[in-house]
Amino acid sequence: MSGNTFGTLFTVTNFGESHGPAIGCVIDGCPPGMALTAADIQHDLDRRRPGTSRHVTQRQEPDQVEILSGVYEGVTTGTPIALLIRNTDQRSKDYGDIAQQFRPGHADYVYWQKYGVRDPRGGGRSSARLTAPTVAAGAVAKKWLKEKFGTQVRACMTQLGELPIAFESWAHVAHNPFFAPVANVQALEDYMDMLRKAHDSCGARIRVQASGVPVGLGQPIYDKLDADIAYAMMGLNAVKGVEIGAGFDSVAQRGTVHGDAMTPQGFASNHAGGVLGGISSGQDIEVSIAIKPTSSILSPRPSINIHGEPVEVVTKGRHDPCVGIRAAPIAEALLALVLMDHALRQRAQCGGVQVDLAAIAAALDTPI
Amino acid sequence: MSGNTFGTLFTVTNFGESHGPAIGCVIDGCPPGMALTAADIQHDLDRRRPGTSRHVTQRQEPDQVEILSGVYEGVTTGTPIALLIRNTDQRSKDYGDIAQQFRPGHADYVYWQKYGVRDPRGGGRSSARLTAPTVAAGAVAKKWLKEKFGTQVRACMTQLGELPIAFESWAHVAHNPFFAPVANVQALEDYMDMLRKAHDSCGARIRVQASGVPVGLGQPIYDKLDADIAYAMMGLNAVKGVEIGAGFDSVAQRGTVHGDAMTPQGFASNHAGGVLGGISSGQDIEVSIAIKPTSSILSPRPSINIHGEPVEVVTKGRHDPCVGIRAAPIAEALLALVLMDHALRQRAQCGGVQVDLAAIAAALDTPI
Amino acid sequence: MSGNTFGTLFTVTNFGESHGPAIGCVIDGCPPGMALTAADIQHDLDRRRPGTSRHVTQRQEPDQVEILSGVYEGVTTGTPIALLIRNTDQRSKDYGDIAQQFRPGHADYVYWQKYGVRDPRGGGRSSARLTAPTVAAGAVAKKWLKEKFGTQVRACMTQLGELPIAFESWAHVAHNPFFAPVANVQALEDYMDMLRKAHDSCGARIRVQASGVPVGLGQPIYDKLDADIAYAMMGLNAVKGVEIGAGFDSVAQRGTVHGDAMTPQGFASNHAGGVLGGISSGQDIEVSIAIKPTSSILSPRPSINIHGEPVEVVTKGRHDPCVGIRAAPIAEALLALVLMDHALRQRAQCGGVQVDLAAIAAALDTPI
Amino acid sequence: MSGNTFGTLFTVTNFGESHGPAIGCVIDGCPPGMALTAADIQHDLDRRRPGTSRHVTQRQEPDQVEILSGVYEGVTTGTPIALLIRNTDQRSKDYGDIAQQFRPGHADYVYWQKYGVRDPRGGGRSSARLTAPTVAAGAVAKKWLKEKFGTQVRACMTQLGELPIAFESWAHVAHNPFFAPVANVQALEDYMDMLRKAHDSCGARIRVQASGVPVGLGQPIYDKLDADIAYAMMGLNAVKGVEIGAGFDSVAQRGTVHGDAMTPQGFASNHAGGVLGGISSGQDIEVSIAIKPTSSILSPRPSINIHGEPVEVVTKGRHDPCVGIRAAPIAEALLALVLMDHALRQRAQCGGVQVDLAAIAAALDTPI
Repeated sequence: MSGNTFGTLFTVTNFGESHGPAIGCVIDGCPPGMALTAADIQHDLDRRRPGTSRHVTQRQEPDQVEILSGVYEGVTTGTPIALLIRNTDQRSKDYGDIAQQFRPGHADYVYWQKYGVRDPRGGGRSSARLTAPTVAAGAVAKKWLKEKFGTQVRACMTQLGELPIAFESWAHVAHNPFFAPVANVQALEDYMDMLRKAHDSCGARIRVQASGVPVGLGQPIYDKLDADIAYAMMGLNAVKGVEIGAGFDSVAQRGTVHGDAMTPQGFASNHAGGVLGGISSGQDIEVSIAIKPTSSILSPRPSINIHGEPVEVVTKGRHDPCVGIRAAPIAEALLALVLMDHALRQRAQCGGVQVDLAAIAAALDTPI
Repeated sequence: MSGNTFGTLFTVTNFGESHGPAIGCVIDGCPPGMALTAADIQHDLDRRRPGTSRHVTQRQEPDQVEILSGVYEGVTTGTPIALLIRNTDQRSKDYGDIAQQFRPGHADYVYWQKYGVRDPRGGGRSSARLTAPTVAAGAVAKKWLKEKFGTQVRACMTQLGELPIAFESWAHVAHNPFFAPVANVQALEDYMDMLRKAHDSCGARIRVQASGVPVGLGQPIYDKLDADIAYAMMGLNAVKGVEIGAGFDSVAQRGTVHGDAMTPQGFASNHAGGVLGGISSGQDIEVSIAIKPTSSILSPRPSINIHGEPVEVVTKGRHDPCVGIRAAPIAEALLALVLMDHALRQRAQCGGVQVDLAAIAAALDTPI
Repeated sequence: MSGNTFGTLFTVTNFGESHGPAIGCVIDGCPPGMALTAADIQHDLDRRRPGTSRHVTQRQEPDQVEILSGVYEGVTTGTPIALLIRNTDQRSKDYGDIAQQFRPGHADYVYWQKYGVRDPRGGGRSSARLTAPTVAAGAVAKKWLKEKFGTQVRACMTQLGELPIAFESWAHVAHNPFFAPVANVQALEDYMDMLRKAHDSCGARIRVQASGVPVGLGQPIYDKLDADIAYAMMGLNAVKGVEIGAGFDSVAQRGTVHGDAMTPQGFASNHAGGVLGGISSGQDIEVSIAIKPTSSILSPRPSINIHGEPVEVVTKGRHDPCVGIRAAPIAEALLALVLMDHALRQRAQCGGVQVDLAAIAAALDTPI
Repeated sequence: MSGNTFGTLFTVTNFGESHGPAIGCVIDGCPPGMALTAADIQHDLDRRRPGTSRHVTQRQEPDQVEILSGVYEGVTTGTPIALLIRNTDQRSKDYGDIAQQFRPGHADYVYWQKYGVRDPRGGGRSSARLTAPTVAAGAVAKKWLKEKFGTQVRACMTQLGELPIAFESWAHVAHNPFFAPVANVQALEDYMDMLRKAHDSCGARIRVQASGVPVGLGQPIYDKLDADIAYAMMGLNAVKGVEIGAGFDSVAQRGTVHGDAMTPQGFASNHAGGVLGGISSGQDIEVSIAIKPTSSILSPRPSINIHGEPVEVVTKGRHDPCVGIRAAPIAEALLALVLMDHALRQRAQCGGVQVDLAAIAAALDTPI
């Protein structure tokens, strides 16, 4: 009930504070018999970690993961997989003033009100640093989904502040610091340089996609697949909006346009974003998220202190001028975790159904 | 894990099919000692029920609720509150053909793939009729929140198809069939008449707001208040997008604009939508949702049958040309359920905190 | 968290009060595709229901079950199965005085302290009548287990008050009102007649057994199969003790005796009671439970009222002089619910393991 | 669903294997504002750890606990408390043969069947070593219960193999290696020496008690306090039986004897063991558990290997000849975890009840 565990059958229990001794998670429910090494996990952690370009925080954290349990001779045993990441670059003195003040747009005030006590160093528990364990767990889910169904989960940036980014190819995403699906990112580089000089920050829009998703994932009333995706994405720090398929554009669409026609060769369009009635249809899952501008900026901002007195807050520290830049691997991880969880649920409840659906599935070109 | 229970401490377990004997729910976790009668619940059911104007389905369902348990001499006892609504107007013959075909935009195909068997009458479990038990449970949560904190939850339509609806006043919402916050709804009436003649349907945008929300509701990492709101709203039938506060507009905002300044008199703006770091700030919770156009339309649509053969589907039955019209009371119920659940969680974990927060809370004009 | 839901994947949410309008439950997680009718459930309800012999309460309750959802054309659809049992024979006036007094050995006092309000009619929520929905749900689980694995769950009485009952055959159990595994129950009849004349009550010991249980059910650390069985059994009204296998006798056993040797022909003994390290071994699950004497007796008992003043309580009403007599079908249901839940868990987590265990399983003569 | 998390509101997620890099747990739901240091936890770990007398395993494990999160400047923050214990004395070579054989009375066979893969070193996940994280978490619960309610949880041995141990005083328990409540333990020493020479092992009976428990903990139908206690205790390695209050003796008791009379001065007896209708009555919680003899013995035992062939197993390693000897602190921890969880549940659901129960509580001499 304390909100630190993600999932129902494939669960991730997250722990740690930004400047405490360590962060990490315990993954429970991973099926036995899957090959797994720290390297499988480290890859995604490296994609998320800070300090990799001049456009993100310069905090140097290697984010080296250690597998403490659940893997024997390189194979998962079906028991909890505990992952540990030691914090190494904590400059807590940067946060001295913050303990007495509430930074606008941050969780300082609400933590104070909620708990009556808080760890102010680097945002403590509310730091985006705590997405690292989520990314680590997501790497395990990604691997299982890929081996089991051929599922591929990926994300890219589709807007940076006022700049829309026209999709060119997934192939470009790995070759620039913005996770942008374009060959030339000079405009993005210039935009970020401008922002930094202005001591300001900006938002971003991220597209997340899963292909090779089996039909039938999701539950009918409350734990719909899209509901759980929305939960996962809105829970990512700084996210203020989530869309599935046509999203907000569907408001002005007509029914004759929006409803995806079905043919013996498959669906004719994908306004639904791969989810019908809360259950995956076998089409690509398409998600879009809005990320707000970073609240930690060098420009002075009016606020109050813990005594309710007015103060002016300047957030020094080392921060990302656009937290959206590093969001792509985190969003991938979250989508993978949701899919994995629902895959296990489907296996639990419907694993024994013996109805022959092969013909129809083949006709629609969807994996079972 | 089967997705029919909403919430963690204040739980709602939903059952029933559109044309089965009955629908209903079991509410568990309602605190004892609250006055409660069927009339308290019936009011919101009546706001949601079909057949109340020419713009919604003409199915006649009184949706009369019976309290089966959990209330003794008009007071909640702390034990499960079971609510029963008998289905009375089932014209199952309308759905004869549907059992062999998949309606585009509907859950028919995915249910078939998931379960291998389905109740095709009126959409069975995937019918929007199953939102009635949610509304009933939401009425209980609303009452408790109002008595405990003075919380008020309300919703209105802000766009109908292509027509944006400029907000005039909450006072208008109860006086037109659209839940529109405007005095004159002639344009909306005309638009719906046009659509009906065209055998088409449209989407809608709904605004949901909660005021009088205590500070401190929500959990830090995964079960953030906004994450749980997104889960609740995206789980409402036909919803394709969810925004909190500035939502997708925040992508193009700068940090100097977006972050809500704090003053001894309170927050200076509410781009956050009442949630910071996943925890309520005491400001109004502001949510906006996108609802897709109804998939059940009289225009013929290409699809396939259970043998994978092409067919043309015409959905006869009696359907809402815009499911968004009846969505407002459901969205209110969902927001109330999320807030209630988090209020109990907060009481469980932090009920004993003795830190004196009165001064700061008074300064910021927020309830504790 | 309010304790009215049993299970994790196959869940039963119980509602109702002894003298309210109805009792019932919502079963969630039942796999689709199983034939199910009310008659399948009614059989076990009839075994449990009151008024069937002079040795149990004379309350006349037909306990007629209605399936409200989750079954379409006689087959489970994978959606929640709601079961409703109307209360028909409520003589609430029998309980008039009780509202102001606390009956010794009953839950009156603790409900008062816990909730501040309670439904005193017939014990309200604490009545053993609320085991009926558990029995109904258990019948569904039993049917699934039997069809899937050939599992058979049964229970019998092994002691009535001071009288031990030597096991003769399971075949006798259905032919006497005591669920006793003996041909001649005259001694039991006489014992009960004596007790009734003495205005007293007695306890009982029940043996519960499941055969045909697949190997591998149960979780390693906390949700061990035996732990969940103990939870289920101790939760049955009036149970004060639970044993698995050798139970308390194992305290004085030596390791050379207790540990069940394994041979290519199977286990050589079953002191473990079918559970090793919390996981089923394929042997029969053997459980024994102790049921305390009924607290509701006609003999006057000293107690206090809600003002803390001394009173003398005589429980009139219509009560079982030995609640253990009707416990056998309830205990069966509880064991079936635990096994079913773990069978689905096993399918979720390890459903994909492809290791060939056939040879060893065959050698040990255990189902997979 | 994978059974590695204990509790519902105060949760403990356990990880690790006996001979892996580390064991530990994540505690979630601990209220903020409680002083907590590693020393508070280390005390109970030291009481449980091996190597402290010649009657227990000679494995040398300091079981040094590190707090990784959730505590800031010596005070709990309300966020997850991760606890880490590195494994230091792993002699994995002792277990070489075991990887291909199934030790009688152990979990080897069932793990193999369940997961298809297992960590055989020291029993892997099924080792009693995994009770250390439970003990660590229990120490946190104990501290909170003591500070909040004055609750005291303690355990002692009441039987060692065939030797009953007459209760003298709780004061003796800390002064002998058996947790025996007697001044002179020579007979116990002799008995253990005899057993060790005989290459055999024995069982034990442990009494667990909590005093100062508030009235009202426990839920009415399934999550009864005694049900959750039974679950917790039966889940402790090697436990085969659990009793509450009069336990199995209640079978032969009459209702006139068993039901604890109430007087204005309090309850007149405690056959109920502090639980009525599944809810704490304010009396001492009294629990008794049966622990089977250690399965790992030096005497050769017939078994089979993974190919189903007959083998003779001699368990070398370093094992406890009576695992019951170190069970007392573990049983205490489990009882504390159950009570803490229910205390938070009670706060969530009934925290707001304003009924004045002070008078009656005072009359009955029970804490509120």
